[in-house]
Amino acid sequence: MEKVRFDFERVFNDVVGQYGIGRDELESTLDKLVDCYRDLVRRHEENELGFMKLPYENFSHLERIASIMRERYSQLILVGIGGSSLGVEAVLNAIFYRQNSNFVVFDNVDPIKFDRLIRHIDFVNACIVVVSKSGTTLETIANFNLIYRIFENVFKEDFSDRIVVITDPVKGPLRKFALSKGLKCFDVPPNVGGRFSVLSAVGIFPFYFMGLDVDSMLKGAKSAITELEGVNKKHPSFMLAAIYYLLYKKGMNINVYMTYIESMEKFVDWFRQLWAESLGKDGKGQTPVKAIGTVDQHSQIQLYNDGPRDKVVTFIVPERSLVDFTIRDPLLEDFKYLNGKSLGNILVASYEGTRDAMTERGIPNATLYLSNIDEEVFGYLFMVYEIAVALSGYLYGVNPFDQPGVERGKEITRSRLSI
Amino acid sequence: MEKVRFDFERVFNDVVGQYGIGRDELESTLDKLVDCYRDLVRRHEENELGFMKLPYENFSHLERIASIMRERYSQLILVGIGGSSLGVEAVLNAIFYRQNSNFVVFDNVDPIKFDRLIRHIDFVNACIVVVSKSGTTLETIANFNLIYRIFENVFKEDFSDRIVVITDPVKGPLRKFALSKGLKCFDVPPNVGGRFSVLSAVGIFPFYFMGLDVDSMLKGAKSAITELEGVNKKHPSFMLAAIYYLLYKKGMNINVYMTYIESMEKFVDWFRQLWAESLGKDGKGQTPVKAIGTVDQHSQIQLYNDGPRDKVVTFIVPERSLVDFTIRDPLLEDFKYLNGKSLGNILVASYEGTRDAMTERGIPNATLYLSNIDEEVFGYLFMVYEIAVALSGYLYGVNPFDQPGVERGKEITRSRLSI
Repeated sequence: MEKVRFDFERVFNDVVGQYGIGRDELESTLDKLVDCYRDLVRRHEENELGFMKLPYENFSHLERIASIMRERYSQLILVGIGGSSLGVEAVLNAIFYRQNSNFVVFDNVDPIKFDRLIRHIDFVNACIVVVSKSGTTLETIANFNLIYRIFENVFKEDFSDRIVVITDPVKGPLRKFALSKGLKCFDVPPNVGGRFSVLSAVGIFPFYFMGLDVDSMLKGAKSAITELEGVNKKHPSFMLAAIYYLLYKKGMNINVYMTYIESMEKFVDWFRQLWAESLGKDGKGQTPVKAIGTVDQHSQIQLYNDGPRDKVVTFIVPERSLVDFTIRDPLLEDFKYLNGKSLGNILVASYEGTRDAMTERGIPNATLYLSNIDEEVFGYLFMVYEIAVALSGYLYGVNPFDQPGVERGKEITRSRLSI
Repeated sequence: MEKVRFDFERVFNDVVGQYGIGRDELESTLDKLVDCYRDLVRRHEENELGFMKLPYENFSHLERIASIMRERYSQLILVGIGGSSLGVEAVLNAIFYRQNSNFVVFDNVDPIKFDRLIRHIDFVNACIVVVSKSGTTLETIANFNLIYRIFENVFKEDFSDRIVVITDPVKGPLRKFALSKGLKCFDVPPNVGGRFSVLSAVGIFPFYFMGLDVDSMLKGAKSAITELEGVNKKHPSFMLAAIYYLLYKKGMNINVYMTYIESMEKFVDWFRQLWAESLGKDGKGQTPVKAIGTVDQHSQIQLYNDGPRDKVVTFIVPERSLVDFTIRDPLLEDFKYLNGKSLGNILVASYEGTRDAMTERGIPNATLYLSNIDEEVFGYLFMVYEIAVALSGYLYGVNPFDQPGVERGKEITRSRLSI
């Protein structure tokens, strides 16, 4: 994809020294991944897995309903958490970053946050999209319940037209409720895990509702797959899986994503979930850490540069600026050199300074350059990282599609609430 | 302090097993800290350090100017980054979380963010506070320069009345500029590092301007110090320093702060800087990681519970809810048990479930309970953590007050921009 470029040159030991990886070991790891990828494709053919099939689905029914609702309502209230909200937020926050976009996400059960959000609801123009794959997510059910009752109070008449439920096609209490009330209901395919579901109805319905170019997003996702045809070992999914794994094996248990595009912060949150939940098991896993450039140059870089050698850093950097501001007539004598320089120039120079200083100190780092932030780019990135983490599962020897480590906490929570 | 309670019970090996610490080793580490604390006090008496003296300063000149400006202007534009913005944001975001507060922070040099922020400036009512201890912070100078020129264009007349500069009392290009233009100028004491400066003019002026109870904040900070009188080894500053250090020595190179109060997110960012920049040096240091409960239960807990034993987790939890919302008549059959339960109940039960499951798996964890989020609490927490990190420096054998590891990146950035 032309708009997306990965640069992995600074992860090699012939560039960054002993904490880097060897070009040979990368080659042999990439070789291993060829069979893993074939297995991934086979599991899709056998319908055990579904996320790689999503870009080829027909979503015209979602488009139709979304466009009808869009004519009637202008505010989207998304009720969902984790895989049911992070991907949607990643896209909407970035694309509507400079505008006052009309969507509100109820994820947490923090009452102070609920109070803040509820003040922003424009009832007359609002519709609710409630998303839970299992239909049993405690936070989502609680938030939906409260919002539903508030709507009941406000409208005093049937408002079921304003609700869309996205959940398992058959199972779960949310599907049951939706059926009993005759609510519009869309499916999360059972063979697609929550954190892999952004290109299912989970994301696609909100994207249509917000007026995004879904075709372009699916096109981006497809190109991530077609670029792999014939198995291209230099494909970013292969490279990400192999490089991060080899660095993890060398003791880098921390994977920093430092974005110099602030509007991509929520994308990093999406990545954080994908990486942590998929690979963090059996005593293994790399802890993803979000950082913001240049802000965290003044907060974390001292530690990254001089602290323990436990990190690989990936920068997200704009290849060009969509908007920029240029300094003319610097106010301060000592900063005459800023004359004619733009914020974009300073941002990129700051990234380069940070990257080069880090490289000199031997800290493996990579860069993801984006020349645009649009639907196609997101579709591509989602699929690249989903395939990457699936491939990583083979290398780590863990199942990237489950999350057994969260059950016990839920059980305790339920029992405390049931008293 | 009554409103703040730390619970460190779940860090001990007789509670969490082999990854916990021994009560004996904690005792002996706390004993060591007694002399370190005395040294810290001595360095303050000799004026080598200044942060512990800040709560005793007289800030009436700031109060006077702030109250005059507050009458004229309602919007605060803060231009600063790192230690010049994080503490201020921590307080203002939390205290004004439910309102539309009238302050804007220009930290980054991301042009997309600048464009978004500049749209929110209410020129007629705006004043600018520009903060840089050295007076040479690239991002701050660039943002200030751009905003200054925009104001020039808007006002076509003298607007120097709207500007406050906070910087070194004598040195630096920003002080020089302020003097040449006759701008109001306040000092960052030379013996107070940026990340320790929130209780100097850096924070105090904005707090007065925003109408906060500064006396109460300073009172909170003082109580953190007076509680130490006679050297109380169970003081949270002692406990935080000793416990995190001992866990770090046991291989926990990641220090997770998981806040179940979303409005405390920026406080975690403040802590992140304090911890990372102060201790991340000489190959040592613990990487602070921010997490949000309950949101990250659906994103990171799988990794925390089943991944490598490289983490200590500290939860921030409300002791009571200032506002709450109760579920009546649960909509879903399976969730009848939520009847009469509030969001606050669900939040706390979720924390308890997460904490107990983590404890069962032997992951050391602590809890910071807050029964209120006000100026006094912030003053107390700032001072507790600043003393804690200063004491940690002795244990790590590093100087917590410098940041040599960021210079090289700045140098490269400057040389790239000077071409």
